[in-house]
Amino acid sequence: MNNRTIRCWVDGQPTDHLDIRDRGLAYGDGLFETMALLGGRIAHEHHHYARLVAGCHRLGLPVPKFAQWQEHLAVALNHAPAEPAVLKLILTRGRGGRGYRSPQNPKPSWILQLLPWPDYPKSWAEQGITLRYCNSRLGHNPLLAGIKHLNRLEQVLARSEWDDTAIQEGLMLDLDGQVICGTQSNVFWVRHGQLYTPKLDRCGIAGITRARILEHFDVAIETISPADLEQADELFVCNSLMGVLPVINLAGQRYEIGPVTRAVQDALQKETV
Amino acid sequence: MNNRTIRCWVDGQPTDHLDIRDRGLAYGDGLFETMALLGGRIAHEHHHYARLVAGCHRLGLPVPKFAQWQEHLAVALNHAPAEPAVLKLILTRGRGGRGYRSPQNPKPSWILQLLPWPDYPKSWAEQGITLRYCNSRLGHNPLLAGIKHLNRLEQVLARSEWDDTAIQEGLMLDLDGQVICGTQSNVFWVRHGQLYTPKLDRCGIAGITRARILEHFDVAIETISPADLEQADELFVCNSLMGVLPVINLAGQRYEIGPVTRAVQDALQKETV
Repeated sequence: MNNRTIRCWVDGQPTDHLDIRDRGLAYGDGLFETMALLGGRIAHEHHHYARLVAGCHRLGLPVPKFAQWQEHLAVALNHAPAEPAVLKLILTRGRGGRGYRSPQNPKPSWILQLLPWPDYPKSWAEQGITLRYCNSRLGHNPLLAGIKHLNRLEQVLARSEWDDTAIQEGLMLDLDGQVICGTQSNVFWVRHGQLYTPKLDRCGIAGITRARILEHFDVAIETISPADLEQADELFVCNSLMGVLPVINLAGQRYEIGPVTRAVQDALQKETV
Repeated sequence: MNNRTIRCWVDGQPTDHLDIRDRGLAYGDGLFETMALLGGRIAHEHHHYARLVAGCHRLGLPVPKFAQWQEHLAVALNHAPAEPAVLKLILTRGRGGRGYRSPQNPKPSWILQLLPWPDYPKSWAEQGITLRYCNSRLGHNPLLAGIKHLNRLEQVLARSEWDDTAIQEGLMLDLDGQVICGTQSNVFWVRHGQLYTPKLDRCGIAGITRARILEHFDVAIETISPADLEQADELFVCNSLMGVLPVINLAGQRYEIGPVTRAVQDALQKETV
């Protein structure tokens, strides 16, 4: 991703700086959403809003009404370019409290960044990508599993394991050695025509594209080991910016790009934003 | 703790704001140290430095030499008051990188806050404190266990469980139901004259006061369940600001303040800073 920020705002004000006493920095006490802006609109906005709300419930943050969400995001949408772009929202518990203790009436910080569209090569979606396994394992914690919170050191450590640009993503295992997700994507596989994706009740992030696939297709939620994944007929990863990317090579194991993967790509592409 | 910041600096410059693209905010990609400033000097500075270095190795952050640490902290020490104060250091991976991927040559941010001394009541150390058990469990992840990184949502959620000012600290269990630590302290217990503290190889933070006690006393590192902890003869918690606090009540269970706890308090108090 081209990491050059176009514009940014904190609580509606144009600024690229945040109070160092914000709990987002001190403890990762908050959530984020990385959203595709297409034609000046947030793609799958209700999915992103719903996940943020789920995260707020889990972390005990004040839950914004949809109208409040819209109001906070308006400043960025007013500056959205016509071409595709990325809107990143960081929502923290704001300042205050003593040590880990939260303030009684937290005033969350709404931090917005408008970023250029990453321009992943078209060949990734068409001809497939290459994956490795990461050595960094995902820890277990049902308290935090599934939501997109700011405690992301596991993903940072996993992504630091390779520099080879021929490898587009790394799959992460949990402490039990089960396949959970990519460093920045969810993973699906196909076996005898059935679509599968891992359970995310102990670790991993439940992505928006994953949620959309679960709405459109009959997906079995199962755990799987790397050894069993070798028996899959098709394999793909997905996220909100990359879309659905077929995997043709996972740690040297070859996969065909099959009809189910293509059907998922087609279905999501046809869906109205 | 009185949370009013006296002064703060980022990379040597007096400012209370940080770039919102800092990875400390985006991912909790960094470490922190909360240090007692006594007579203008950092208490147990080499312990804090050593833990920061251990954390840098674990997270793949550039490891500062001791002279660099001193240089970065000098600006705060030059403004240290004569009375006790707190110096909080947040060290992040700085800006840059694409998504989770770190920049090749990260330029860490050194964020310093000079805070007033918390003034815990003297009665806590003398007459003991009351603890509860937290429902929020600590997840397991050996990758991150022990170091004082910025991914602290577990502690935030645990500390949010009670408001009762008669309860000074909460003990946290791990996913297996074993006692690990307090939300902001380490825990020790005594049984038949032997001092014990939990293993921190899968979760928890290895505190500086804990390290000092391990240097002075013969401590057995063991796991313990809440049921077994009821059989302890003495119980105490500790951290760098509170010191060693005897526990007289844990979730209704009464404990005596015994000779081992007093010996630990005496030994640490006599130690030269």
